[in-house]
Amino acid sequence: MKMVMAIVQDKDSNKVSSELAKARVQATRLNSAGSFLRSGNTTFMIGVDDERVEEVIEIVKTYSRARKQFMTPPLSMDSIIDSGSSFPIEVEVGGATVFVLPIEGFYHF
Amino acid sequence: MKMVMAIVQDKDSNKVSSELAKARVQATRLNSAGSFLRSGNTTFMIGVDDERVEEVIEIVKTYSRARKQFMTPPLSMDSIIDSGSSFPIEVEVGGATVFVLPIEGFYHF
Amino acid sequence: MKMVMAIVQDKDSNKVSSELAKARVQATRLNSAGSFLRSGNTTFMIGVDDERVEEVIEIVKTYSRARKQFMTPPLSMDSIIDSGSSFPIEVEVGGATVFVLPIEGFYHF
Ligand code: NI
Ligand code: NI
Ligand code: NI
Repeated sequence: MKMVMAIVQDKDSNKVSSELAKARVQATRLNSAGSFLRSGNTTFMIGVDDERVEEVIEIVKTYSRARKQFMTPPLSMDSIIDSGSSFPIEVEVGGATVFVLPIEGFYHF
Repeated sequence: MKMVMAIVQDKDSNKVSSELAKARVQATRLNSAGSFLRSGNTTFMIGVDDERVEEVIEIVKTYSRARKQFMTPPLSMDSIIDSGSSFPIEVEVGGATVFVLPIEGFYHF
Repeated sequence: MKMVMAIVQDKDSNKVSSELAKARVQATRLNSAGSFLRSGNTTFMIGVDDERVEEVIEIVKTYSRARKQFMTPPLSMDSIIDSGSSFPIEVEVGGATVFVLPIEGFYHF
């Protein structure tokens, strides 16, 4: 048994949560926040058998890794005056940090 | 020294907290939530000497384990029409998950 | 790599957070609370290379350890009647608890 602690962006947390549930992996959610950028994130605390650790990491990775996304920035006065429209730009979203911790005991009452 | 992480239902968290305090065990509380059922729970982070780990687990178990309870469901229109009363039903409440983690260092400043 | 979990008083958490950032140490913040005294505190979850563990502990210690501070208590009716002024008293502020946990895996996606 291991404890997997996964810190994912809020934007991705519901998807990660439901995919863990689909895989019937028990997880506890904690509201957390980054320290550099104060954006909200979610820390999942997951108790899982050794042989399923990789599977859990794969779920987290699939649904929360950093990736590029096109986003249309809100119109500014300048852009309205210049061109009347706003162009989509590529931004990075997501990103996760995962720790695997050894445990010495696990109980469920 | 170990770190005991105990996840208990909100309903039981004040009792667990005060019983840990009575035993003079230092605990830190984190608001958390389940992942399957989104009900609120509380994660206790407890630093404790090896020889008191069992005692801490016993406190958590005693005051937060899953148990049956009779509950009177709120009256619905149907039941008022049918019988004028509501019958108590047995429900499961509580339930806790406990992890015992090894630690390599502990400091108090 | 280790996981350092540091519980510091809310009063000190912004300073600890910015000093960790200055040292370019990644930290995740969790809102937490004491169990004896219910005052709010902050739990920092920090993944850090073995050779920087002492440095991280030193940052936490420097900016959040328990220390004496002079505080002027709010005027009470009695003290107004007695003397017309309130005297500064020495109080303890701060205080931190730090755990160093071994980790078996660390991933950043
Ligand atoms: Ni990154
Ligand atoms: Ni259960
Ligand atoms: Ni103290």
